[in-house]
Amino acid sequence: MAGTNRTNETLTGGPVVILVAPQLGENIGMAARAMLNCGLTELRLVSPRQAFPNERAVAAASGADLVLDGAEVFGTVEDAIADLNMVYAATARRRHFLKEIVTPARAAAEMRAAPAEGRAGVLFGPENSGLDNDHVALADRIVEAPLNPAFSSLNLSQAVLIIGWEWMKSGREDVGAEMPMGHTYPAEKELILKLFEHLEDELDARGFLVPVEKRPSMVRNIRNIFHRMALTDQEVRTLRGVISSLTRYPRQDGK
Amino acid sequence: MAGTNRTNETLTGGPVVILVAPQLGENIGMAARAMLNCGLTELRLVSPRQAFPNERAVAAASGADLVLDGAEVFGTVEDAIADLNMVYAATARRRHFLKEIVTPARAAAEMRAAPAEGRAGVLFGPENSGLDNDHVALADRIVEAPLNPAFSSLNLSQAVLIIGWEWMKSGREDVGAEMPMGHTYPAEKELILKLFEHLEDELDARGFLVPVEKRPSMVRNIRNIFHRMALTDQEVRTLRGVISSLTRYPRQDGK
Repeated sequence: MAGTNRTNETLTGGPVVILVAPQLGENIGMAARAMLNCGLTELRLVSPRQAFPNERAVAAASGADLVLDGAEVFGTVEDAIADLNMVYAATARRRHFLKEIVTPARAAAEMRAAPAEGRAGVLFGPENSGLDNDHVALADRIVEAPLNPAFSSLNLSQAVLIIGWEWMKSGREDVGAEMPMGHTYPAEKELILKLFEHLEDELDARGFLVPVEKRPSMVRNIRNIFHRMALTDQEVRTLRGVISSLTRYPRQDGK
Repeated sequence: MAGTNRTNETLTGGPVVILVAPQLGENIGMAARAMLNCGLTELRLVSPRQAFPNERAVAAASGADLVLDGAEVFGTVEDAIADLNMVYAATARRRHFLKEIVTPARAAAEMRAAPAEGRAGVLFGPENSGLDNDHVALADRIVEAPLNPAFSSLNLSQAVLIIGWEWMKSGREDVGAEMPMGHTYPAEKELILKLFEHLEDELDARGFLVPVEKRPSMVRNIRNIFHRMALTDQEVRTLRGVISSLTRYPRQDGK
């Protein structure tokens, strides 16, 4: 997200997304879009209910053609996962399996830590019912997104997005916050101090900074407000113009 | 996500979601569903293009009626944010603003840390164009999800989900992984050791564990495989049955 992170990244190494018996082309398309948003490109479909390729999928993909064009169709989950080393089953309902359940962030960290020759994949079930227990049993782990327990059923493409999002995040340090300065930079302190003097002079001239024993703290409070803004040269000039305008000229509407 | 976290949580304190000029009812509905998935309930719409309430929104919400029923419609962004203390503008394109940009996780942490009387909201722009610069300017911060720089435009409901997901996560410790044992627990070691003895006896009887100087390491390797499984009583019994079956009875198909 910072300038230096905006170079094109190689779109490899991420998990394969396997949609088992998806019902609607729209959801396949939206899943493909979510995948490419998150740098994932390898899509596999097991027995889609509608013929594939599919016009509605293309429309819903909003340009993620690269993912749809490369999508492979399989007849069984077993065939779709045959070349993978580590398979996660994405589920919303808790199953009674003795199988490790990981959060999406943990699954992403595991997949990032995998050796280069290891391939991982994530299974997603059909929209109405989720994965069959037989398909969950084929996975090494269950990946479950902790959501509102009273309303935890995600749209298929939303489930894909959460996995993709955590995959994307796992590859980057979270910068948390940044201030994009472009070609600007905070003004030299001399300019800032002149702004303060200008403002305080105008306020003194109007008897605002009284009583005198409170003047230092009042000045400090006002200066803090402006300091917090990390003003640029141009912004300092703008503010000085504002002060001048407010103090030198009468209102032109006569109020 | 663990049993103790599955109690119903109070759905309050989260940010207000403000959709500015959303074009399609479907996207409003999917956004409402994503919100409720993540425990967010307060939706505001600014000048939706289609009349609201809207049948397509209801269908796409898949049961998140609570969110749609409570949604408020406003004529301007200014009116929609008037009672909020902290406003984030969700954007995909980088703007040339001197405004702090935070990641969704950072925004969520800030919102969690806010005092109880402080209300936060997140502005999302229309599907085709995102937020106007004038609307971004009304926000305190920009929240930007670092995505594939070559394909960063998210579906509206997906953008809402990422914010909601990070909000949800920020309220919980990430347990990472857990093994749901139900009423079971790993078997007593005595049972495990008897399983090993059973297996090794059958293997010894067939001359598998040779040469004798390699026997200890071969046994260790086999025991490690079974130890890693944290077998329950029932599973130990099952495995002993498997060994017995393999060793006692001939194939019934004559091969």
